[in-house]
Amino acid sequence: MSRTIEVCLTPALLHLYDIEKSIVVVIDILRATSSITYGIDNGAEAIIPVAQVEDCLAYADKGYLLAAERNGEVVAGYDFGNSPFSYTAAKVAGKTIVLTTTNGTKAMHLAHARAHQVVVGSFLNLTALTTWLKAQDKDVLLLCAGWKDKFNLEDTLFAGAVVNKLRQDFVHFDDACVVAEDMYLMAKDDLRTYLHKSSHSHRLAQLNIEDDVQFCLKLDICQAIPVLIGEKLVKLDH
Amino acid sequence: MSRTIEVCLTPALLHLYDIEKSIVVVIDILRATSSITYGIDNGAEAIIPVAQVEDCLAYADKGYLLAAERNGEVVAGYDFGNSPFSYTAAKVAGKTIVLTTTNGTKAMHLAHARAHQVVVGSFLNLTALTTWLKAQDKDVLLLCAGWKDKFNLEDTLFAGAVVNKLRQDFVHFDDACVVAEDMYLMAKDDLRTYLHKSSHSHRLAQLNIEDDVQFCLKLDICQAIPVLIGEKLVKLDH
Repeated sequence: MSRTIEVCLTPALLHLYDIEKSIVVVIDILRATSSITYGIDNGAEAIIPVAQVEDCLAYADKGYLLAAERNGEVVAGYDFGNSPFSYTAAKVAGKTIVLTTTNGTKAMHLAHARAHQVVVGSFLNLTALTTWLKAQDKDVLLLCAGWKDKFNLEDTLFAGAVVNKLRQDFVHFDDACVVAEDMYLMAKDDLRTYLHKSSHSHRLAQLNIEDDVQFCLKLDICQAIPVLIGEKLVKLDH
Repeated sequence: MSRTIEVCLTPALLHLYDIEKSIVVVIDILRATSSITYGIDNGAEAIIPVAQVEDCLAYADKGYLLAAERNGEVVAGYDFGNSPFSYTAAKVAGKTIVLTTTNGTKAMHLAHARAHQVVVGSFLNLTALTTWLKAQDKDVLLLCAGWKDKFNLEDTLFAGAVVNKLRQDFVHFDDACVVAEDMYLMAKDDLRTYLHKSSHSHRLAQLNIEDDVQFCLKLDICQAIPVLIGEKLVKLDH
């Protein structure tokens, strides 16, 4: 098969891509898909991504853990926020978590409506993910969740890392792959410093999540690949 | 004034930007905005961008020159195609030209509907354009025409060249500025070679327009800045 890999830089461009037979990798590095990867790897039974804090309420009486933040603080009455440090085995093993994430949820729902399969990527599971993608006989779309439908640096950097690992196994690629890979090659020796160039590095600093950012850039500490089945992200058998 | 510069990577994202008080620079390097810049610089009275070859027909009895191509060939009955070499002073001085360009026209019309002012940029007028932009007290949006609403390499490279010239004069910028500028800095010593990495370099080769591509990457051979007034691109007084 003459396989294609492409990068969709924001969910607002997803309608331009034929994904009916493709695997879509949703990327929301700070912090949704990193926390999801870590949580599933640590034995969470399932993670349900929702767009708004209010959407969590529908799950309030099901015994699920509820995760929601506003302005970097855990919302009163919720179990924890969006930091990957909340997703340790001690906290999530065997549990189902409802996670509030605006950009990531939008990307997952849009992709799920049309794609052959939707999985979740992050630096934490880069090698596990790319090894699995290589072995599938499918086209791949790397979908950056972005920020309010706009392009962002960290999601595109990760897309570039995936392209860099897969390029030899795919025949066709698009211009966004070229740029994402070149960005990644430029930045890979010090991803954190490169992200300081971002227009929202100031916003991140205000959220006081520097430890989270550092953690979300760790390579290959997880083997799990979360896959979206219905409304739930669960561990892919691979 | 605390000025903002942003890069909109494709017209499909333009709705995300507030441009009511901004100058929008439309970028369609291969070849629309390069040919337009060269034609206006060579004394064309006006250039009217239209989206379809058929749209030219509405202007057939006005004594305008009609420019249209299909698959790299001048359409039968038309005066010339989209090559910048058709826009020499001998051919266009004092004339009005109707130019068919799908991606460029779409970008210009979308921007024109909302922006404070719409101008045209290309490597041919980079310094004239950026010198003028510096002197305006306005925010700037660099609008890449892209390819069928998708991201492309050459338009983003040029956006990066503009960012590189203007960065010191603007306070706010977005992540697309960061990436466009870094791409440009990586590629600037040999833009042509970098563009060979493009997914459509094969398509360009088939069109047999290598001379056009080389020409469209020439720096600063024009002083003119085309500005959109109504449906016509004319020479900006600067």
